[in-house]
Amino acid sequence: MPDIASAAARQQVKKERLEDLAARPGFLIRRLHQIHVALFYEECGAYGLTPVQYSVLTSLQGEELDQKRLAESVGIDRATTTEVLRRLDKAGWIERRKCRVDGRRQLACLTQTGETLLATVEESARRAHERTIEPLTKAEQDRFVRYMNKIVSAKNEHGRASLKFP
Amino acid sequence: MPDIASAAARQQVKKERLEDLAARPGFLIRRLHQIHVALFYEECGAYGLTPVQYSVLTSLQGEELDQKRLAESVGIDRATTTEVLRRLDKAGWIERRKCRVDGRRQLACLTQTGETLLATVEESARRAHERTIEPLTKAEQDRFVRYMNKIVSAKNEHGRASLKFP
Repeated sequence: MPDIASAAARQQVKKERLEDLAARPGFLIRRLHQIHVALFYEECGAYGLTPVQYSVLTSLQGEELDQKRLAESVGIDRATTTEVLRRLDKAGWIERRKCRVDGRRQLACLTQTGETLLATVEESARRAHERTIEPLTKAEQDRFVRYMNKIVSAKNEHGRASLKFP
Repeated sequence: MPDIASAAARQQVKKERLEDLAARPGFLIRRLHQIHVALFYEECGAYGLTPVQYSVLTSLQGEELDQKRLAESVGIDRATTTEVLRRLDKAGWIERRKCRVDGRRQLACLTQTGETLLATVEESARRAHERTIEPLTKAEQDRFVRYMNKIVSAKNEHGRASLKFP
C-alpha cells in the first residue's frame, strides 16, 4: 500500500521549496534575464545580434570610444569588450583605429553599415524590451523600471564589470 | 579653437544615450543579474558555490530527482544540469544512482555533507538575496518581487530552458 501521508508530506515540502525559489530575488532576476534574452533573440535574431552587441553599437552612436570607456558605458569586462568588438568589426558594423594622440588607445566607431543596421534593428529591439515587461500594467512597468534603476544606482559598484550609470 | 557648440551637442547625445540604456528593461535586468551574482559570491564565495549550484542543492532538499525534473525545477538546460551535477558530485555534496524502476533515469540526492553545507550556507545565501534589493523600501521590495513573479509566470514559456514555476 502506498504511504499516502508521507507522499502528501513530500508534496508539501516540494511545494514550499518551489515557492521558496520563487520568493528569492536572485532566482527571479536570473529567470527574468533568460526571458529577456529569449525575447531579444525572437525579435532581433534575424540580424545576428546579441543584446550586449546591441548595447555596444548603441553606445557608439554619434561617438568614437576607446575600449575602456566603451566597456564602462555597457558594463562589460575587458575580455568581453575585445571579443564583441572583434565580432562587430568582422561583421562590418564598426571600424577600429589607433588614436592619433595616444597610440596605445584603440578607438571604435560605427561604419555606415553599422548606422544602417542600428536604424533597422531599433524597432525590434524596442519591442523585445517592451515585451519583457508587458505582463505588468503601465503604472507597474514605470514603477518596476524605477525600482531597477534605484537598485542599479545604489549597488552599481558591486557589478563584476564597472558601469558608468547616469 | 575647440568647437564648443558641437562638443556640447556631443555631450547631449551621450547623455541621452546613457539615459536611454538606463530606461531599457533588458539592460537593467542584465545589470541587476551581474550585481546579484557578485553579492552572492561575496556572501557565499567561501563555500565555492555558484548561485545555480545553490538552487540545484535547494531543489534536492528532501527529494531525489532525475535530471529532467531537476533541470525544470531550476530552469537550466540539459548540458548545464549535467555539468552542475558532475561538480556537486565531485565535491561530495550529492550522490547519483540509476533508478531501479527505469535504468535510463539517473537520480540525484543530497549526501549528508550536502545537507550540512546547505544548512551552513543558508544564512549567507539569504543575505545575498536580501542585499540585492535592499536599496528599496520594504513596501517596494514586496512590490518588486511580486512584479518579477508576475512577469516570470506570464513569460515562463519564453525562457531558454523550461522551468516549472509555482
